[in-house]
Amino acid sequence: MFTEYLNNVRNKKPLVHNITNYVTVNDCANVLLACGAAPIMADDIAEVEEITSICNGLNINIGTLNARTVESMIKAGKKANQLGNPVLLDPVGAGASTLRTETALKLLEEVKFSAIRGNISEIKTLALGTATTQGVDAAVGDKIDFDDFDNSVAFIKSLAKRTGAVIVVTGAVDLIVSEDKVICIHNGHPAMSSVTGTGCQLSAIITAFLAANPEQPFNAAATAVMSYGLAGEIAHQRMTDLDGNSSYRNYIIDAVYNLDETTFEKGIKYENR
Amino acid sequence: MFTEYLNNVRNKKPLVHNITNYVTVNDCANVLLACGAAPIMADDIAEVEEITSICNGLNINIGTLNARTVESMIKAGKKANQLGNPVLLDPVGAGASTLRTETALKLLEEVKFSAIRGNISEIKTLALGTATTQGVDAAVGDKIDFDDFDNSVAFIKSLAKRTGAVIVVTGAVDLIVSEDKVICIHNGHPAMSSVTGTGCQLSAIITAFLAANPEQPFNAAATAVMSYGLAGEIAHQRMTDLDGNSSYRNYIIDAVYNLDETTFEKGIKYENR
Amino acid sequence: MFTEYLNNVRNKKPLVHNITNYVTVNDCANVLLACGAAPIMADDIAEVEEITSICNGLNINIGTLNARTVESMIKAGKKANQLGNPVLLDPVGAGASTLRTETALKLLEEVKFSAIRGNISEIKTLALGTATTQGVDAAVGDKIDFDDFDNSVAFIKSLAKRTGAVIVVTGAVDLIVSEDKVICIHNGHPAMSSVTGTGCQLSAIITAFLAANPEQPFNAAATAVMSYGLAGEIAHQRMTDLDGNSSYRNYIIDAVYNLDETTFEKGIKYENR
Repeated sequence: MFTEYLNNVRNKKPLVHNITNYVTVNDCANVLLACGAAPIMADDIAEVEEITSICNGLNINIGTLNARTVESMIKAGKKANQLGNPVLLDPVGAGASTLRTETALKLLEEVKFSAIRGNISEIKTLALGTATTQGVDAAVGDKIDFDDFDNSVAFIKSLAKRTGAVIVVTGAVDLIVSEDKVICIHNGHPAMSSVTGTGCQLSAIITAFLAANPEQPFNAAATAVMSYGLAGEIAHQRMTDLDGNSSYRNYIIDAVYNLDETTFEKGIKYENR
Repeated sequence: MFTEYLNNVRNKKPLVHNITNYVTVNDCANVLLACGAAPIMADDIAEVEEITSICNGLNINIGTLNARTVESMIKAGKKANQLGNPVLLDPVGAGASTLRTETALKLLEEVKFSAIRGNISEIKTLALGTATTQGVDAAVGDKIDFDDFDNSVAFIKSLAKRTGAVIVVTGAVDLIVSEDKVICIHNGHPAMSSVTGTGCQLSAIITAFLAANPEQPFNAAATAVMSYGLAGEIAHQRMTDLDGNSSYRNYIIDAVYNLDETTFEKGIKYENR
Repeated sequence: MFTEYLNNVRNKKPLVHNITNYVTVNDCANVLLACGAAPIMADDIAEVEEITSICNGLNINIGTLNARTVESMIKAGKKANQLGNPVLLDPVGAGASTLRTETALKLLEEVKFSAIRGNISEIKTLALGTATTQGVDAAVGDKIDFDDFDNSVAFIKSLAKRTGAVIVVTGAVDLIVSEDKVICIHNGHPAMSSVTGTGCQLSAIITAFLAANPEQPFNAAATAVMSYGLAGEIAHQRMTDLDGNSSYRNYIIDAVYNLDETTFEKGIKYENR
């Protein structure tokens, strides 16, 4: 089943419009190409509607937002909604500044998202209006309690219900959450957090998977998360003693590029909860 | 002959002013250093004239244009014209949005370009005012008919005549086109399209070659295209089973850095038509 | 002694706020992670004070400055001063345009810096109001005369006295300069200048070292310079015949990531003058 969603990206080669930060934008473009999609970046308000109209999905990432680009995000998001194209929100650093929190909340009001991906502090900020985000990483105190799972994820399910979006919470274990189901994904490697922008890259990939599988956003998002996490594992096996986070960055994208069906099917680790 | 143009870049170390997109800007800087030139990026309207005045060439790339930077492009372009410095236009995505098409056409009106480099859809948009650009890649229907070559390239020659620029159309075969001659270049590798920004990098390199060979823009552009395409071939030979588009990106820039005269002379593949 | 400053970065994991150029920003983020720190990039005036308040240090780099971001730099700098957080200035291209020179001088007036890092032409511009900067590289005529050292560095000491900042002048030999002392550092490799943004990366790292060692800015800056230079040496030993400046870029960040205490202690080369 998941393999089909993977192959749809490669076969349909969805064009993804990204309004994203200037820190990790190049990696987002290359990882989209690696997974079989195609990227376009455009953030001027005069063109975002037209650009989004020729695309199959829209990835909104507030990483280095500014007054100018926030307006473009809203305009592009509304247009994508009109067209029925999937839209993803990556609320980078929501909770770290009033501007980020308010922008994320405003985007939720103005645009209907197919998926929202963030770390648990960012998702908490969106769900509860408050959290203890530490910069762009999750705060240590924000975590899922797997012994009290249902209570622990209730606020995420409720955000899913309220927004209609699939909520992807990434961390040691990744969660794919809708109003009534959760998949826990155990792919990935802790060293991925030593590479800047792995979250941004994943958001770009999820958007591509949504665009290629518009009828199945929940499973499409899960497949994207599994495949990127698995790429992180495969890439880590390739590391030599001399390699560090910069080579790892390259190896991860390379592994996305080379991921084949058999490796995918053997390597994915998930459970429905 | 072409080898001389290659060596001139290394000996003169031209300083290239880039007003370019934030997606591939780092690769543009590194590939300029790799070919022997030096990069500077500056896009604020208060400084672009001064910056271009200390440079030997100007590379204008509309990849992530916005209202602010378009003004800077025009101002810098006019100043470079005054100084007699070569100016290159990379009309990224012309045809994909009205803003991009109109900006490219406005730049053609206001600035005299030594060279214009784009895929065939972008060049068609500039030449004919219309095309079927798919995002930042050429549309499938836009191609050169090598069996009816003269008719097929007539619109490119006419753009060259009208603008006085050398037109570089990149694709499976790259064309260097002036009012009255065409060189077809058969270097390069199809996998280069899996790396974001290879077009942008080539535009930066061509600008360096124009700056180091200002009397010979046609041959300088051809040399730049041959050398970058050849680097793409050499880099591809280095690929292992684990490598993907991210390692390939590094290997291409590495190959530009290491390209020696003998390899260049043996490797270039072109025909005059 | 220096080893302690190195370890403090890894143990304290300082969060560094960067207002920096879009050319080398991704490398700055990855090198901060490599040395044990964490990056956040934010440049909108509405959030820079809040972002800097959750950080341990602020890195201001004027590489692709514009009217909008200059205001944000000043506002963030003043806030960091209020909080007692270290602030570093990287005056990229000061001397190359009036905007850059005036912005750097204005920042010196408005913000108290713990450290300033630049090449000798940039530092001369700040110290003397004039220099012969060639783009973003030092002019050939600007150099330290090691046979007449005291006279040669007098203007740097006087800038240190006037600003209260540690002045880091990078070149073939790197100088760490305060009002009354100088350390000359002989680590590094000439090939580092073939990689764009090694200066920007170093500035980011120095900020992390200042943030983790706020009582010892002089020694912290020296340790940062030694460790990055040493990483450049180690990375260069790894180069094969096929590698060029792009692989070198990765290897340098990898070497920062892998630098251990023993290698550091054996590898550092400096003299007090």
